[in-house]
Amino acid sequence: MAAPGELHYLTIGEAAPLIASGDLSPVELTRAYLDRIEAIDGRLDSYVTLTSDLALSQARQAEAEIRAGNYRGPLHGVPIALKDLYDTAGIKTTAMSRVTPDRVPDEDATTVAKLYEAGVVLLGKLAMHEFALGGPDFTSLFPPARNPWNTEHMPGGSSSSSGSGAAVAAGLCMGALGSDTGGSIRGPASMCGIVGIKPTFGRVSNYGVVPLSWSQDHCGPMTWTVEDTAIMLQAIAGHDPRDPTTADVPVPDYLAALRDGVRGLTVGVPREYFYEEAPGVDVQVIEAAERALEALSELGADIRDVEIPHIKYAQAANQVIMMSEAYSFHEANLKTRRHDYGDMVRNRFLLGGLLSASDYNQALRMRRVIKDEMADALHQADVLVTPTYASPAPKIEGYAGGTTLTQPSFTGPFNVSGLPAVSIPSGLSDEGLPMGLQIVGRPFDEATALRVAYAYEQAARFIDRRPPV
Amino acid sequence: MAAPGELHYLTIGEAAPLIASGDLSPVELTRAYLDRIEAIDGRLDSYVTLTSDLALSQARQAEAEIRAGNYRGPLHGVPIALKDLYDTAGIKTTAMSRVTPDRVPDEDATTVAKLYEAGVVLLGKLAMHEFALGGPDFTSLFPPARNPWNTEHMPGGSSSSSGSGAAVAAGLCMGALGSDTGGSIRGPASMCGIVGIKPTFGRVSNYGVVPLSWSQDHCGPMTWTVEDTAIMLQAIAGHDPRDPTTADVPVPDYLAALRDGVRGLTVGVPREYFYEEAPGVDVQVIEAAERALEALSELGADIRDVEIPHIKYAQAANQVIMMSEAYSFHEANLKTRRHDYGDMVRNRFLLGGLLSASDYNQALRMRRVIKDEMADALHQADVLVTPTYASPAPKIEGYAGGTTLTQPSFTGPFNVSGLPAVSIPSGLSDEGLPMGLQIVGRPFDEATALRVAYAYEQAARFIDRRPPV
Repeated sequence: MAAPGELHYLTIGEAAPLIASGDLSPVELTRAYLDRIEAIDGRLDSYVTLTSDLALSQARQAEAEIRAGNYRGPLHGVPIALKDLYDTAGIKTTAMSRVTPDRVPDEDATTVAKLYEAGVVLLGKLAMHEFALGGPDFTSLFPPARNPWNTEHMPGGSSSSSGSGAAVAAGLCMGALGSDTGGSIRGPASMCGIVGIKPTFGRVSNYGVVPLSWSQDHCGPMTWTVEDTAIMLQAIAGHDPRDPTTADVPVPDYLAALRDGVRGLTVGVPREYFYEEAPGVDVQVIEAAERALEALSELGADIRDVEIPHIKYAQAANQVIMMSEAYSFHEANLKTRRHDYGDMVRNRFLLGGLLSASDYNQALRMRRVIKDEMADALHQADVLVTPTYASPAPKIEGYAGGTTLTQPSFTGPFNVSGLPAVSIPSGLSDEGLPMGLQIVGRPFDEATALRVAYAYEQAARFIDRRPPV
Repeated sequence: MAAPGELHYLTIGEAAPLIASGDLSPVELTRAYLDRIEAIDGRLDSYVTLTSDLALSQARQAEAEIRAGNYRGPLHGVPIALKDLYDTAGIKTTAMSRVTPDRVPDEDATTVAKLYEAGVVLLGKLAMHEFALGGPDFTSLFPPARNPWNTEHMPGGSSSSSGSGAAVAAGLCMGALGSDTGGSIRGPASMCGIVGIKPTFGRVSNYGVVPLSWSQDHCGPMTWTVEDTAIMLQAIAGHDPRDPTTADVPVPDYLAALRDGVRGLTVGVPREYFYEEAPGVDVQVIEAAERALEALSELGADIRDVEIPHIKYAQAANQVIMMSEAYSFHEANLKTRRHDYGDMVRNRFLLGGLLSASDYNQALRMRRVIKDEMADALHQADVLVTPTYASPAPKIEGYAGGTTLTQPSFTGPFNVSGLPAVSIPSGLSDEGLPMGLQIVGRPFDEATALRVAYAYEQAARFIDRRPPV
């Protein structure tokens, strides 16, 4: 068992049997996390709200239930945290905006209720970009989170689950929920050297989560390991009558096939766009992905090139759909209290107001083409593999929030198509910053994507889980 | 058997066994229709292209096949016609517009190919409103069709399968395909005293059909009887890999339960909006629907009121979605050759260019609410029953194409939700013009809607099929 000062280095998969057997006290574990947050989060700003009292009371309750023989499963007594756009009954949910600085929901998001049901301990709410868009903005309600690998860098590019990435990477929670509309789970996972999954659209409920783009928003977990991501996804997945976009399809056991390896699987490589040099692309991330393909080949996977002919239009479709839907949601507030929005997000939302119904329709038609082409590619392969993000984490200083269109997005195309996509670490850059590998599955087949991710993770575990924060 | 001069009074259901047995010659039948078109279509303008040579050659082939013992089924040798937006390989398909006056497709629409497969004889292409929108417009490529019950009246209000309605009602074909985006099958069926169905969205392929509003367009048959509609729907229904919006769900045998009656079925009556006096509503259509409810009750159906709380917003959603998608499709041509569009349709399309992505999103969100509310209503009832159209057929003279927003639409809400809806005659107005009853089913349950329609049709067959043309 880890020494008391190092409890935060345990994964969920390691901690769960110790908690189940009574060898690890959820109360002691929770205190360790609260102490560590106290000690180092001043440098990271990953938390915007701490729920210490709630956490300790949940931990005590978990301990009592487990002692009484009522162990609920691998998340029982496990301290987690939530991006601050998940509604939490009685706990402030700000979406990090001065538009809703004091909002206290009456009701938990469906995913939060499911995590409570699984017995988690809630440490607090995590930083993000205002309303899940933009970048680090010092005019926003709270300071932006920082990357534990280098606090001068962002924990997530133009993406927004920045506090979730930073907190998990720095050992300030055992797992977190993020949300992903253009890459906001996978980007921070990539830049913070952790694992995250954007599940299939319709697999996880969005009920009670502040929307950005209702047809592209995805909720999902971020953790240190693939196994932990599978454990958390298991707890939150499934049809929700309160979210009509969720699909009423069975949820498989995500741990069952996790260790089955990649022999017999075909890995599709969409070389165009995802493996090409372009403005904003750091060639190191491509090289890391190439090495990962070699590793997967050595593990027995068949590697083959596939094509997605209209892929170069996917990012524009992602952005046009996102800005159209975001403006639609924020229109009334933008008209009446424009100055409560931070500069960066206001300016981007207002662009959405300039889009016509025809622009949006063209993007929806492009979505259909891209979806079909990705389906064709996934007829030839079980998964697709690409780099996750075009570069290691950018610096906070001087970031203009404008990389969205000046740099290719390897994540956004799968928000357009709704396919499940895992990001796992693929190595460190010359500067010592993490890079990520993206594994994309067929619709509702997160299991195979996780299985490939797990095989690669076991073979290539070269990122130490102790960032130099 | 009908006398040679009256062959056009046969229904498909009556003709099919005679054709199968060799007692009725498809060639003779086709000649009878061609003669009748020649004799009276000058007064109706229902056809824009006649395919007499093709028809006679198809009829001869059908006759030969049947003589050789290769009878294909109830459409073999049956003369039908198509709204002029169904692509027909080698045959002009104009959508009645000067934008595409000479377009000759290379390929048949999926539905046309399926009808050929079933052995039909194609008499020709039928008039419509330009690009399926607007109203009778004398600046369009062909003159507008006229109602055989009174040629001063339109065969379909703001709806567009006007030639299909007129031709079927006047005995100028045994059945036709129309298309319905806001009511363009059901409106003409109602106004011409015939039967038509808008199937569930996704039940029938739209491949090869000129689009108006790709998320609301529905292809479907128009015929004299419910049985004939069931026969034609059977032939065209089913998943089409070339139309990704079609659903891969089994197609039932639509004739199997047609005669099972309504005992044990619950008929839901959405009184709000559909049964209320309002500008543009002729109270006679409501009274006719009330009488139909009494008839269904006497036949053993349970009648109960149901609610669709947001129904009053459905028409705006239908129009905003329609104009947004239509403008998106026509944008390039509207910019470069605006004056090739007829006045009425051009002005309405251009309105679509003023809609924002946010307007369209608000309409899509309203669609979701209305869909859910209709699903709730159809948990309490097997079908919903309403009047089809707010009035009998308006006069052509002075029609401004503007009833869309000044008169409630009883049909459009079901284009928004995609539910299947049949229209059947419910009587004649004081002016001697037909009125219609609409029967709406659960998703993909056209069969039950047709079954209720059939029961009512048998009990209340008070429209003679000989309009005074």
